[in-house]
Amino acid sequence: MNKWTTKILNLFIIFSLICILASCSNTSKKPKYIFMFIGDGMGLHQTHLTERFLAEKANKPGVKILNFNKFPSYGHITTFPTDQFITGSAAAGTALACGEKTSMKSIGMASDKKRKLESVAEFAKKQNMKVGIISSASIDHATPACFYAHQPHRKNYYEISLELADSNFDYFAGGGFLYPDGNPKKSSELDNYGKSESRDTNKEKINSYTNAKNKSYTIIRSKEEFQKLKKGANKIIAINPNLADGESLPYDIDSKKDDIKLSEFTTKGIELLDNPNGFFMMIESGKIDWACHSNDAVTTIHEVLELEKSVEKALEFYKKHKDETLIIVTADHETGGLGLGFTLKGYKSNYDLFKYQNISSEEFAILFDKKMNEKDFNFEQALKMSEQYFGLNKEENKTTLTEYEISVLQKAFADSYKKNKTAENKIKYSGNHPYATANLRILSNKAGVAWTSFYHSASPVPIRAIGNSSDKFAGYYHNNEVALKIKELLRN
Amino acid sequence: MNKWTTKILNLFIIFSLICILASCSNTSKKPKYIFMFIGDGMGLHQTHLTERFLAEKANKPGVKILNFNKFPSYGHITTFPTDQFITGSAAAGTALACGEKTSMKSIGMASDKKRKLESVAEFAKKQNMKVGIISSASIDHATPACFYAHQPHRKNYYEISLELADSNFDYFAGGGFLYPDGNPKKSSELDNYGKSESRDTNKEKINSYTNAKNKSYTIIRSKEEFQKLKKGANKIIAINPNLADGESLPYDIDSKKDDIKLSEFTTKGIELLDNPNGFFMMIESGKIDWACHSNDAVTTIHEVLELEKSVEKALEFYKKHKDETLIIVTADHETGGLGLGFTLKGYKSNYDLFKYQNISSEEFAILFDKKMNEKDFNFEQALKMSEQYFGLNKEENKTTLTEYEISVLQKAFADSYKKNKTAENKIKYSGNHPYATANLRILSNKAGVAWTSFYHSASPVPIRAIGNSSDKFAGYYHNNEVALKIKELLRN
Repeated sequence: MNKWTTKILNLFIIFSLICILASCSNTSKKPKYIFMFIGDGMGLHQTHLTERFLAEKANKPGVKILNFNKFPSYGHITTFPTDQFITGSAAAGTALACGEKTSMKSIGMASDKKRKLESVAEFAKKQNMKVGIISSASIDHATPACFYAHQPHRKNYYEISLELADSNFDYFAGGGFLYPDGNPKKSSELDNYGKSESRDTNKEKINSYTNAKNKSYTIIRSKEEFQKLKKGANKIIAINPNLADGESLPYDIDSKKDDIKLSEFTTKGIELLDNPNGFFMMIESGKIDWACHSNDAVTTIHEVLELEKSVEKALEFYKKHKDETLIIVTADHETGGLGLGFTLKGYKSNYDLFKYQNISSEEFAILFDKKMNEKDFNFEQALKMSEQYFGLNKEENKTTLTEYEISVLQKAFADSYKKNKTAENKIKYSGNHPYATANLRILSNKAGVAWTSFYHSASPVPIRAIGNSSDKFAGYYHNNEVALKIKELLRN
Repeated sequence: MNKWTTKILNLFIIFSLICILASCSNTSKKPKYIFMFIGDGMGLHQTHLTERFLAEKANKPGVKILNFNKFPSYGHITTFPTDQFITGSAAAGTALACGEKTSMKSIGMASDKKRKLESVAEFAKKQNMKVGIISSASIDHATPACFYAHQPHRKNYYEISLELADSNFDYFAGGGFLYPDGNPKKSSELDNYGKSESRDTNKEKINSYTNAKNKSYTIIRSKEEFQKLKKGANKIIAINPNLADGESLPYDIDSKKDDIKLSEFTTKGIELLDNPNGFFMMIESGKIDWACHSNDAVTTIHEVLELEKSVEKALEFYKKHKDETLIIVTADHETGGLGLGFTLKGYKSNYDLFKYQNISSEEFAILFDKKMNEKDFNFEQALKMSEQYFGLNKEENKTTLTEYEISVLQKAFADSYKKNKTAENKIKYSGNHPYATANLRILSNKAGVAWTSFYHSASPVPIRAIGNSSDKFAGYYHNNEVALKIKELLRN
């Protein structure tokens, strides 16, 4: 061959190689930075409710589509556990975290409640990626726990907190430990797989925070300290200074200036975890679920919006590291059986009314119960509270109450004192606050939404993804496949 | 250059061309055969309900995923019209058929109810493709009408039937014309855009069937004639010999041997329309919506399964023409606000109970009303009917009624005679049959599902696609984009 031949042959080989490389490029480079957002209880309707609320509040037709619903990959995942149809956060969290459907209450364990399952977070840690786990619920709550613990029962909070300290993960943030001095002794409340009473009483327990410190974790409990945390800070447990019920972050609608919000925990996580080996971060908005358990549409909307803000923080990072970043936004299950239509409203809806509620029903119940302890508290004053906190019975709001609605509130007012548990009241309030619940129901119904349950539903939930390998997460499939897909990506 | 150089250069050029062609191959060939299945009212939960029912009936855990939910492309589309949040079949059908969101009641017209919109079916016809329109509702009902008619109001049934005859489409099948001799004269029931009374009274009207015959259509009204139809038969209007309420096909659960089912109409459509220029076929399962308006879960399941069977017919065709066929399965909106969880059942559900219902609530109401005309009909006999048709109050079914449920049925029994329209009864029954509705509600609640409305909800609805260009239909987007995407494909 002459010189020309050799040159052309070389060119041909190089070109062929480029073609081959180009065709492989999508599979050869694995994601270096993985964000997994979980909206606990955030079904299809929780986000669409929010999308319509945003548009209607801005006096616009249609919807304002949430940033994560614009992601290029979209799908739905089934949520059912192995032993029934409606799931809970433990079984669903385990499926999402570990890649195997399991039985109710199991944390990072198989259906037999014996075999431990490896989470994607543990898998990432083994690959020298940094790992962050953030939740607006307590940090030992079912969903976050599934990423670092292995317990037959989600109520083994104390044991979960010990596993957290052994995880060696780099960043835990959000709520605190629920039972840092040992689970409560009511073993009757637990099933066979829950913590056993004997074990609790016969052992002196180390406090969960002390234990974590002993294992080199730094516990951060003030916003000032939190803000000072800089890149390089390692093994951090950052807890919001103000904790609400169940050691959780306050609802976004109730949050105050010195609160650290989910989006701030996310931003800090990015700062702390960014390193040449990459990171895996799970960010749970845990209280969308809680708000939906109360059938509280407005508090739900605010929680979804704070989750969206957190996703935006990840998106800012993604824009700087497009080829290396994968962001997933999904849910573990739907809560409340939220329907975007209410029979008495027919085809009409008016989500604009939701702007008048300015407090979570949980916080409202606390205020209401305080009032109930006052001597002269009466229904008229309760009705004033309905106006003040839910915007109800106000002509200018177009929320004037009908006679029937007034009677419902009167009944709920009386029930708040009785707290009786008849079948009728179980439908009406479940374990929730009667007067708060009645207000929520009237507001929801006037707006044109309704709920079928105070518990979870079996609805499949949306999953969206953007960035490296995001196409893998499109389609209609089972929730456990999410973790399998992530593991497969990390294995490459 | 010597011979070697030339040879290698040629090889290089050929290889480059192959690379270029390979990268273009997906976009260069447009779909020749397009199936568009619309499940009217078939939201996310209607199909998942069915998926669980199938598994539970077979005594299996989890779900049996429907064939169309296994399609490679999956997404959700918004459903809202231009003038409110909850849509109707006219506005949603127009968006899906023509590519533009419009106002309530409009058929193939823009929001202003003046500007006509071109449907994908009309667009396909212009390209010399054959066109088939199938519906289990009357063939002039809102959804099918959006593909061939242009009317400011969906209730202009007679005008719609005239447009059908002018469409020149090749195959209409399913239900009949609703008002073949002119719309009913109750103009008070129509809004400003409905047919005007003067127009109806001053004109002698040609019968819709006669008119269609005059325009060269053959009307088929027996199963025998239908089965005899062979490839080459042209301009066919095939109507099921037995029509139920509103000139629709009977519900699948009520169907008899001489009925022509949706899947049979689909199979025949394929046979008649297959030609070298390709075809566009829209197949609507129109009565999923009707069943959900009644909050009738079991009838819904059977309708979904018959739709699935129809999709299977298209899939058989697809397997023979994979590169040329596109199948889309979607919905216009959700009906009923169906929630897959009911508060009194907590986290439990038992869809197995659904196997006991053996009749649609509509057919049941007809039987019940006949009984009501008998002298000695009493509540005990009504209760026997609950057992016979809904499997209720039977120990071996585990459907023994509670005292409360008996009282609900007793009240409904009385209400069936009164048919009163108090606010309470409006919530309970809407315009539906009190006793039938009470049975449905009890069965649904015992099974662990519930409904928030007797009307539509604003839920976004799933869309799935397989075959040529199916990837275009994945994601979360607006319902009108479906038609825009199809038109774009046909334009190529």
